[in-house]
Amino acid sequence: MKQEEIIAYSAKNGFVWGPEPEIYGGKSGFYTFGPLGKLLKNNVENVIREAFVRNGFFEVECPTVMPEEVWKASGHLDGFRDPIIKCSKCSSTFRTDKLIEELYPDVSGDSMTEDEQLSFIEEKGIKCLSCKGKLTPKIESHELMMRTTIGVDEAAYNRPETATTTYLPWIKYFDFFRSKLPIKVFQIGKAYRNEISPRQNVVRGREFTQAEGQIFILPEQEMDFPEFEKVKDEKLPLWHHSFNDVKEMTLGDAIEKNILKKPAYAWCLWLGMHIFDSMGIPRERMRYRQHHPDKMAHYADDAWDLEVKLNSFSWTECLGVHDRTDFDLKTHSKFSGKDLVASLEGGKKVTPHILEIAFGSDRPTFALVDIFLENSKEHGSNVLKIPARMAPIHAAVFPIVKKDGLQEIAHGIWQELLKEGLVAVYDESGSIGKRYRRMDEKGTPFCITVDYDTKEKGTVTIRERDSMKQERVRLEDIASKIKEKMR
Amino acid sequence: MKQEEIIAYSAKNGFVWGPEPEIYGGKSGFYTFGPLGKLLKNNVENVIREAFVRNGFFEVECPTVMPEEVWKASGHLDGFRDPIIKCSKCSSTFRTDKLIEELYPDVSGDSMTEDEQLSFIEEKGIKCLSCKGKLTPKIESHELMMRTTIGVDEAAYNRPETATTTYLPWIKYFDFFRSKLPIKVFQIGKAYRNEISPRQNVVRGREFTQAEGQIFILPEQEMDFPEFEKVKDEKLPLWHHSFNDVKEMTLGDAIEKNILKKPAYAWCLWLGMHIFDSMGIPRERMRYRQHHPDKMAHYADDAWDLEVKLNSFSWTECLGVHDRTDFDLKTHSKFSGKDLVASLEGGKKVTPHILEIAFGSDRPTFALVDIFLENSKEHGSNVLKIPARMAPIHAAVFPIVKKDGLQEIAHGIWQELLKEGLVAVYDESGSIGKRYRRMDEKGTPFCITVDYDTKEKGTVTIRERDSMKQERVRLEDIASKIKEKMR
Repeated sequence: MKQEEIIAYSAKNGFVWGPEPEIYGGKSGFYTFGPLGKLLKNNVENVIREAFVRNGFFEVECPTVMPEEVWKASGHLDGFRDPIIKCSKCSSTFRTDKLIEELYPDVSGDSMTEDEQLSFIEEKGIKCLSCKGKLTPKIESHELMMRTTIGVDEAAYNRPETATTTYLPWIKYFDFFRSKLPIKVFQIGKAYRNEISPRQNVVRGREFTQAEGQIFILPEQEMDFPEFEKVKDEKLPLWHHSFNDVKEMTLGDAIEKNILKKPAYAWCLWLGMHIFDSMGIPRERMRYRQHHPDKMAHYADDAWDLEVKLNSFSWTECLGVHDRTDFDLKTHSKFSGKDLVASLEGGKKVTPHILEIAFGSDRPTFALVDIFLENSKEHGSNVLKIPARMAPIHAAVFPIVKKDGLQEIAHGIWQELLKEGLVAVYDESGSIGKRYRRMDEKGTPFCITVDYDTKEKGTVTIRERDSMKQERVRLEDIASKIKEKMR
Repeated sequence: MKQEEIIAYSAKNGFVWGPEPEIYGGKSGFYTFGPLGKLLKNNVENVIREAFVRNGFFEVECPTVMPEEVWKASGHLDGFRDPIIKCSKCSSTFRTDKLIEELYPDVSGDSMTEDEQLSFIEEKGIKCLSCKGKLTPKIESHELMMRTTIGVDEAAYNRPETATTTYLPWIKYFDFFRSKLPIKVFQIGKAYRNEISPRQNVVRGREFTQAEGQIFILPEQEMDFPEFEKVKDEKLPLWHHSFNDVKEMTLGDAIEKNILKKPAYAWCLWLGMHIFDSMGIPRERMRYRQHHPDKMAHYADDAWDLEVKLNSFSWTECLGVHDRTDFDLKTHSKFSGKDLVASLEGGKKVTPHILEIAFGSDRPTFALVDIFLENSKEHGSNVLKIPARMAPIHAAVFPIVKKDGLQEIAHGIWQELLKEGLVAVYDESGSIGKRYRRMDEKGTPFCITVDYDTKEKGTVTIRERDSMKQERVRLEDIASKIKEKMR
C-alpha cells in the first residue's frame, strides 16, 4: 500500500495519532501511540529486551536530561546542528541541504559546504517555498538538541541519543560486573532531535524511543570472541563499500575475506539482524550496508547500517552497528578529569573499546504495519497480516447472538484469556462477518465464536485471520491452542 | 535499616546510581537505574501494566514534550511554581516553605502566604544555610516545568505529568472505542519537575516515571459500576478526614456510610491497592488517606492518597485517586476550541468525567528495596528478602569446583534458564558460601549448585535465600521448580 494509505490506516485504527497535540493544531514530529500502536510497540520492545538479556546484556536507565558539559564533551553541543536559511518575508525556515535536494533531486546538497550551498541557492535564484519571497543571504546554524534548564539557571539538554548517557557510568559498571570484560549493557528510552520540519510520521520524530546496546571490550577480546563461534555459519546480506550490490555471505566468510575485521563486531551484526528476524521483519526486506570509509566518523573503525525496505519510504535505515574504538571513554576521561579505564590484573590500565548496536522501537513498529498491511479482496477489508506473536490483540471473543446465555459464556472466555496473559477483546455488535472484518483490519489473528454448540457440546470455533479457516476447539483448550498457534 | 544505609546499599548493588552524571559532579534529582534497579523497575512496571490490562485499560504513549498552550490551558504555566528566596552573598537558592520548616519543624511554612513567609524569615533573622549571608528580602516564583523549544522558537515544556497528555486525544479514544463509555486508558512514561533542591533519592527525582490510569465516564455510570460488585467485600485501611485514624472497612460499608460517594471511585481505590498488593508491598505498611476537603483542588470531588510506610522516609505518598469531574475536558474544550464531548445515542452531548489513578514506578521500586532489605546475622550479610516473583535476578548457577566438567554443566543450566525467560547469572568465583552471600545481598531467591552428584545422579541443589535450606532437584525439573516457587 501507499504511504498516505498506510498512515491513514494507522491513524484510523489506533496505531499512531498526530502530529500531537492535535486539538491544539499539532507540532510536526510528535505523535501518540494509540491503544494498538502501543501494544505493538511494547511487543517490539519486549523482543529487543529478551534478545539482549538472553545474550548477556543488562539493561540500565539513565537520565534523559543531562547538563551542558556532557554534550560539550560528546561533541553534540558544537556539532549536532543543521544549516538553515530563512525567508526574509514570511520567516519560514528551511534546511539548506534538503531545500536544494527537493528542488534539484540530482544534486547532493548534503555533500556541499555551507558556502557552496549558499552560492548554489543564490545562483539558482531559489525562493521561499511558502511565499516565493527572497531568502536571506545567510546560512544559520540550527541546534538540533532541545535546550532546557536545571535548577535556577544551569543549562541542560534533552538527550539527543541514549548512547552518551549509557557510557558515563563506566566506573560503576566495572565495579558491578566485578572487573570482568566484556561488559554488555543496553538502554531503551526516549531521545530528542529538534529537526526543522520532520515529515515522515514516527519514522522521523522529534521525540523517539531508542534502543542501544553497548559492549565494553578489550581490543584482544574483539578478535577472540567465543560467542562468534555459534554464529559464524549464519548468512547475512552484506553490502560492503567495495561491492556494487548485496552479497549473501556467512559471517565466517566475511571475516576470512576481510569484509569484516573483528569477530566481536561481526557478532553484533548478527545480533542486530537476529532482533529484526525475531520481530518478524522478512529477510528479503533487509540488508546491511557499510558506510563508505570516507563518510565514517573520524574515530570509527567500522560502521554498517541495517536497512529495511518499507512500502512507504523504500530502503530505510533501521539499525547501525558502530565500532567506536576507545574514543568515547577517552573523551569523557579528558573532559571529566576521571580515569575511565579498566584496571586489569597485574595493575595494567586500559581504556575499553565500545561496540554499539544502535536502533529504536518506533521504526520497527512502523515497519510492521507498513509491511504487513494488505488490502484484501478476499477479506473485503484491509488486513494486517502481522505474525501472530507480534499482533497487538491476540484474540477476540464473540457470542453469535445476544441471547440464551451465549453472551455470558463469551464474557467468561474473554476474562479467562486475559487471565492467561493474552490481550483479548469482547465484541457482540454487528454480524459475525462484520466482526471478523473489524478484527482482520486490526490484525487480530484469532476470533473465537460462541454458538449453540458451545452450550451443547462445550466447543467454540477459532477462526484464523489469514486463512479465514475455522476450527472447533473444546472450551478448556482455547488458551493453550492459541498460545500454540502463536509460537 | 536507616536511610543512608539503604541508599548506600542501593548504589553499591547496582540499583540506583547518582545523582547523575556522577563523573561530571552530578545534578540533584537525576539518577541512573543500574542493572538490578532496572530489572526491579521493569518488574514493577509489568505488574502495573498487567493489572491495568486485565481490568480493561488500554495503554497509550503520548509525547513528553508539549507546546506552551497545552500548559497554559492545564494551569501548569501559571500555577506550577514554588516560592524561592536567594542569598544576596553566595546566590544559593531556597524554597521558602521548606527553609522555614527545616529550621522550625513545628511551623507549617506550606500553609503561610508568601508575605507571611517573608515576614517570618525577616522576623526570625533567617540567614543563608550555605554561607550565613543575608537573604534578599524578596520571594521569587520558580517555574517547576522544564522549558524547551520546538523548531526555531516555539515555546514548549517537558511535561510535568503524564495525565494532561493522556486527556488530549479524547476525540480519538471515543472513536477508537466505538463511542462506548466508560473508556479506560493508562500511560507509563517520563515526567519532569524542576525542583530547587530535591534530596530524597528517586523518591523525589527531577525526572521520574509516572503511571497514571484514567477512566472517562458518565456521572450515572460512576454510581452504577458493574465491576464494583466484585470488590465490595474487599477491606481497605481508610483514613477519612472525619476520623482520627485508619479504619479497616469494606468498600461496600464505605459507600453505605458515605465515606466514599461513588462505586466507580471506590473501585479505583481497590485497583490502586491491588496493584501495590501485587508488587508485594505488605498491607500493614499501607493506608489510604483522604485529602482534607479544605485542601482539595477546587474542581476535585474527592481525593485519597495511598501512603506506604518506608523505613527511610516514614509514611510516603505513593498513589493518588482523583475524582476530577468534567474539569479537564471542559478546560481543554475551551482553550482548544474543539468539542471534547461524548455524543450519545439520541444526539445528546455530554462532557465525560475523569477518575484518575495517579502514581509512578520509581517510588514502588525504591519501596521494595527499603522494606525488604535486612541486615541478617544468620546470613552474615545484607539480604534483600524481596518476594521471589519481584526479584531482579531469579536464579544463580554455580559449579561447586572449576574442574571435571562441572563448569560446562552449570553453564548449560544457566543458558537453559535464560531460554526459559528467567533472569539468571552464572558465578564460579570464590567459595560457595561467598557466592551465596553475594546473591543474598542482591535478593536472588534461588541458587543452583552443580556438584559431583550432578554428574552421577543428574541432580543439583536449589538453595533458598530466606530459609537457607537446600533441596535436591533433577536437572530437567529446575526451571519448572523455580517457576512454581515464584508463584
